[in-house]
Amino acid sequence: MSDAPPAHPDAAIEIRKTAARAWFESLRDRLCAAFEALEDACDNPATQDLPAGRFVQRPWQRPGGGGGVIALLQGGRVFEKVGVNVSTVWGAFTSDFAGKVRGAAADPRFWASGISLVAHPRSPHVPPAHMNTRHIVTTEAWFGGGADLNPIYPDDAETRAFHDRLKLACDGYAPDAYACFKAWADDYFFIPHRAEPRGVGGIFYDDLTSDLDHAFAFTRAVGEAFLDIYPKLVAAKMAQPWTDADRAHQLVRRGRYVEFNLVYDRGTQFGLRTGGNPEAVLMSLPPLVAWP
Amino acid sequence: MSDAPPAHPDAAIEIRKTAARAWFESLRDRLCAAFEALEDACDNPATQDLPAGRFVQRPWQRPGGGGGVIALLQGGRVFEKVGVNVSTVWGAFTSDFAGKVRGAAADPRFWASGISLVAHPRSPHVPPAHMNTRHIVTTEAWFGGGADLNPIYPDDAETRAFHDRLKLACDGYAPDAYACFKAWADDYFFIPHRAEPRGVGGIFYDDLTSDLDHAFAFTRAVGEAFLDIYPKLVAAKMAQPWTDADRAHQLVRRGRYVEFNLVYDRGTQFGLRTGGNPEAVLMSLPPLVAWP
Repeated sequence: MSDAPPAHPDAAIEIRKTAARAWFESLRDRLCAAFEALEDACDNPATQDLPAGRFVQRPWQRPGGGGGVIALLQGGRVFEKVGVNVSTVWGAFTSDFAGKVRGAAADPRFWASGISLVAHPRSPHVPPAHMNTRHIVTTEAWFGGGADLNPIYPDDAETRAFHDRLKLACDGYAPDAYACFKAWADDYFFIPHRAEPRGVGGIFYDDLTSDLDHAFAFTRAVGEAFLDIYPKLVAAKMAQPWTDADRAHQLVRRGRYVEFNLVYDRGTQFGLRTGGNPEAVLMSLPPLVAWP
Repeated sequence: MSDAPPAHPDAAIEIRKTAARAWFESLRDRLCAAFEALEDACDNPATQDLPAGRFVQRPWQRPGGGGGVIALLQGGRVFEKVGVNVSTVWGAFTSDFAGKVRGAAADPRFWASGISLVAHPRSPHVPPAHMNTRHIVTTEAWFGGGADLNPIYPDDAETRAFHDRLKLACDGYAPDAYACFKAWADDYFFIPHRAEPRGVGGIFYDDLTSDLDHAFAFTRAVGEAFLDIYPKLVAAKMAQPWTDADRAHQLVRRGRYVEFNLVYDRGTQFGLRTGGNPEAVLMSLPPLVAWP
């Protein structure tokens, strides 16, 4: 990590920045521990010859200020690839970008911290998932994030369990939050050129600026919800056998994930076009993909 | 193919449209024949159990007018996947797009015909290649295209042979055409977020509007050059053995091709964002790709 960023004149903002960063890092550690426990617990005959997967952490620095750590588990029994990236970066947007970012038009300086998780299970029956939350400070400050499930074989009960747990988190934020953030995810996680959704949805939210302590509490609740439900969904299916045809279908479906991320995903476009660390930005891409 | 497009009032333009389309289709047939001959000729022990690959043609229609044919060879001995798409489409650009296309601001009607080829050989030693030429008519008319080589293991002699043959085609067009179109390709086929070129280059040209018969002759010369040189480069290396490590490296390098095409390639962005046939647009993507 390079030099510390300039402190914000508002002490409450500065305290929340520190707390948000610490939260993202602690959530990362708990997620990694939960995934490693699944690696230990898995006894699917198809993967019993593989070692239980372990995360390796790789720190990286951003030339303009800050950096992050990519925690990556590759070639596991349960997870063919799962990455959790926590980054805290600061600097000034280029004039191109400053005009497009909330509160940056007059003063392009920014600070941003966030966690981004993408899981690509080995089994075609275990659903891939994504979760990402962030805190951004320019002349304004806000929270944003989301989580969605991308099963190869959608399963109503599984989809309902995922949504119900996210709804519980949303209900603590505002009565209509789930309906709003679910609709936002349905709109966002859509692949126009395929005219199909990326997965079975989840929630997406951004620009929560009005009550920052409440927005931060909600962001923590989203992280807790994901940590609670996703490992359960993985555990429920990780022992199931699969066929070569299932595997072939999985590799094709993963192509849709790549198409969405590289063509449409705003975070990916932002990262790639603003000189972000490509290894961190593209950590989301599946380990093996087919466009037959 | 849906109804015929409206005829252009200038008869010379109309004759050239017909000739360009016929040329693209005949070039497609000769390229497919050359690739099938390579499939028959290959006697690499690594692929001798596979049947010699054959192209299958799949016609498609564009709702707004026109359509095309995807000729696709999958799972061959030499080519893991090679596609040649010839399309002839017409209609009117949306107002968003019309302002960005030459000669379409005041009148958004267009006609476009072109050939697009992407070859992904099975052997990591045989270089993937791309070639694309097109004729577009709005209130103006022009030719454009290009070809580039994307070896997994760059080889100076191979790169020189490819460039030399393209230079021969360019020299017939204008004395400085090769230098210009090579520089254009170096600029275009570059992956900013990786800070690396997509391959070893080739040529790229567009907006050749001034002498259309000459530009069409050059476009034919580019097609002939590719048809002449690429099968020779394939034949030179298709018998070489490769290792699992070569294959793993190939799958990773193919990821760069995907990243370029989905994030930056103008033709892909144009196709995906204007309701093009996604199967035709994404025919370019490699059959199997790794982001380990």
